[in-house]
Amino acid sequence: MSGTIRILGLDPGLRRTGWGVIDVTGNRLGFVACGTVTSDDKAALALRLAQIYRGISDVLAAWTPDEAAVEQTFVNKDATATLKLGQARGIAMVVPALAGLPVAEYEPNKVKKSVVGAGHADKNQIQMMIGILLPKADPKTMDAADALAIAITHAHHRTSPARR
Amino acid sequence: MSGTIRILGLDPGLRRTGWGVIDVTGNRLGFVACGTVTSDDKAALALRLAQIYRGISDVLAAWTPDEAAVEQTFVNKDATATLKLGQARGIAMVVPALAGLPVAEYEPNKVKKSVVGAGHADKNQIQMMIGILLPKADPKTMDAADALAIAITHAHHRTSPARR
Repeated sequence: MSGTIRILGLDPGLRRTGWGVIDVTGNRLGFVACGTVTSDDKAALALRLAQIYRGISDVLAAWTPDEAAVEQTFVNKDATATLKLGQARGIAMVVPALAGLPVAEYEPNKVKKSVVGAGHADKNQIQMMIGILLPKADPKTMDAADALAIAITHAHHRTSPARR
Repeated sequence: MSGTIRILGLDPGLRRTGWGVIDVTGNRLGFVACGTVTSDDKAALALRLAQIYRGISDVLAAWTPDEAAVEQTFVNKDATATLKLGQARGIAMVVPALAGLPVAEYEPNKVKKSVVGAGHADKNQIQMMIGILLPKADPKTMDAADALAIAITHAHHRTSPARR
């Protein structure tokens, strides 16, 4: 009756893409897994993108989420950095889309507001709140913590009914 | 003895990704095919990226290129446009990389210089030179013509030996 939805949050980056999986049953959140997909920064760009693709594919295969959520990238002033981030973000969005998952996008401020209650929270506050909201989570990196925060944001904002 | 290499050129864009396939045998260039992969601009970003992914995958399956070349995106002043282009470009690079093809990158000026002989050539000059260098080509879009120009650039600059 009370179905559980499994959500994959992704915090994309060319060097490190954080991922976090949570289960949502009604208002209850449960930690499932989190981690970081890295790419070899000495490899050619196309190979790095393929590493990210395979890493996220492995996460999908291992944890079979129902829905995905990706941070809407902060567009900074450095165009080269924006382009790099865009390339990694394209991969983070296409892998769940190709698997048939709905993919939501959330702005960083919305993520901070959902998790900490304020749009200007810093990274440490997010990590602390992850510890409170998901006591069993043990994110080893900031990227994994951010990915869990994105998954929690989606749990708060998603509207479609539970599917499992 | 004189092997032929088949090259896929890609001119990535979120709305339209041009593609062009040529055969290179020694100094001779032969037109194989070209076209445009489009995405539905009313669809969600993740679905559009999946459309581009599947479109480029279909081109690879149909024409079985040995190597790929992608334009190194012009980074303009609009960060939102740069991010969009980056996302499409990530897909254009990852599809051939996942298929095991080497993926080269060329700056727009290098492409223009290779095809027209000057780094500041305009789109019409490129299209005219495609007609001279590849008389059998009939690119229906500027994007397809640009993709053929990128493939020609790779034919001029690649150094690895022929493989078929």
